[in-house]
Amino acid sequence: MGLRVDTGKYRAPADGSFRLKDHDPADTGPFTSKKEGKEELERGVKMIREQQELLYASDRWALLLVFQAMDAAGKDSTIEHVMSGVNPMGCQVYSFKQPSDEELDHDFLWRTAVRTPERGRIGIFNRSYYEEVLIVRVHPEILAAQKLPAERVGEGVWQERFEDINAFERHLDRSGTVVRKFFLNVSREEQRKRFLQRLEDPDKNWKFSLGDLDQSQHWDRYMQAYEDMIRHTSTDHAPWYVVPADSKWFMRMAVADIIVETLEGLNLRFPEVSEKQRREIEEAQKRLGG
Amino acid sequence: MGLRVDTGKYRAPADGSFRLKDHDPADTGPFTSKKEGKEELERGVKMIREQQELLYASDRWALLLVFQAMDAAGKDSTIEHVMSGVNPMGCQVYSFKQPSDEELDHDFLWRTAVRTPERGRIGIFNRSYYEEVLIVRVHPEILAAQKLPAERVGEGVWQERFEDINAFERHLDRSGTVVRKFFLNVSREEQRKRFLQRLEDPDKNWKFSLGDLDQSQHWDRYMQAYEDMIRHTSTDHAPWYVVPADSKWFMRMAVADIIVETLEGLNLRFPEVSEKQRREIEEAQKRLGG
Repeated sequence: MGLRVDTGKYRAPADGSFRLKDHDPADTGPFTSKKEGKEELERGVKMIREQQELLYASDRWALLLVFQAMDAAGKDSTIEHVMSGVNPMGCQVYSFKQPSDEELDHDFLWRTAVRTPERGRIGIFNRSYYEEVLIVRVHPEILAAQKLPAERVGEGVWQERFEDINAFERHLDRSGTVVRKFFLNVSREEQRKRFLQRLEDPDKNWKFSLGDLDQSQHWDRYMQAYEDMIRHTSTDHAPWYVVPADSKWFMRMAVADIIVETLEGLNLRFPEVSEKQRREIEEAQKRLGG
Repeated sequence: MGLRVDTGKYRAPADGSFRLKDHDPADTGPFTSKKEGKEELERGVKMIREQQELLYASDRWALLLVFQAMDAAGKDSTIEHVMSGVNPMGCQVYSFKQPSDEELDHDFLWRTAVRTPERGRIGIFNRSYYEEVLIVRVHPEILAAQKLPAERVGEGVWQERFEDINAFERHLDRSGTVVRKFFLNVSREEQRKRFLQRLEDPDKNWKFSLGDLDQSQHWDRYMQAYEDMIRHTSTDHAPWYVVPADSKWFMRMAVADIIVETLEGLNLRFPEVSEKQRREIEEAQKRLGG
């Protein structure tokens, strides 16, 4: 049973030709109803669970999923809805906030490199090292506070960070950690509506902070930073998916289908039982009176 | 007061032309006596201590020193003698043995990347990720046990590991972590003598294991692996130093001088006291009755 979302449409090219304006945040493909989205998401969640069991049992590959987005695009709820069926023993979610002093005392990949998933597991980065070419780029004062030697911060710093990130992800891929990256692409207007909801709905008040509005004021510079980032770091071994985020139901089904497709591409199998193990199983059955 | 060892002589070129046979393990430069070596080592240790204080106070750079060698070349004792003057608060030594199950569940750089030094500190790797292109190369059965997906282990695996290591070290350098690597180059004959000493001297017995002799049997294949490794991973930003190790006194003075030279090259200074801090200092002196 094939997937319903045309995942290739949302995969950013690896040849440096990516343009954000080619991607409509309100796109829902051929789907028109929330009901369709929910059904496909349910199917996706079930298939992810099945694949994750195989991933765990075969103990060779790992999967790293990176989520980046503007505020209120739906990172948290997407991770919740798409991954909620998975055995938590095989899935680790890390949310990266402002770096600690200890983290700033290391290179910018350090705090995430420490938390890459072990073989057999799915690791999820809710924000990631990509913040280093997003918020840090939009706010140069953050870079200035990173205690880097002045000799190491020149004009080429963003290009160097893209290079280092690509090399890091290539190394992960070579080590058996498959990397997939999601930019949840919400429109500014939809973001405004969701902020208003957070203010009006007492249950959502806790999600709001005035700082979010400040970031929104830098919208255009963020979009430039996202575009440049995706252009330089969407690679064959670690592609970016630009997922329309104005319809939450479509975003979730699309993310689920991309994960299913990735895992199915690994052709995972349960480990084969050797002749010796087979004999041990029979022996054990006998001893247990089976 | 300049350094006495001609450090450039021992620095492996970054252009891929390195040949091990150009390096004599018995070389002691223009020096002929253990006494000279001890004096220069003492001077070097003192200068390292001074530089390390500046490194710590200025809190921008870190220094990573990697030591690799055949058994009995003198890694442990060199680290002990060269670094014993340094404030342990600013110096972290990690000795890497056989990887644990948790470590094997990550990419091969992981266990070392986790332990890179923080800003202001000197980190020492007694063995390192370079074991991944040394012992693992000489003993393919170790590679086979690393649980890598078969699709990720092709003929180019060593070349890929060199690439990944170079990219990792370039990233560290860009982040302000200066990397220097030492191959302590002992001859097979000198190794044999030191093994015999370990067997004859009861105080050194604990250092001996039969496994060491096994590795020595693969001497030529190890030398090939070292040569290929140094040829591919000696770079301008992270050079290898091939230090003659048959004379322990020369090895130690040479390592010390290379570290001094590296630290002095950073032009470290105590942080400048701002006008505001100056006023606070005066205020504090007054309050304390100074």
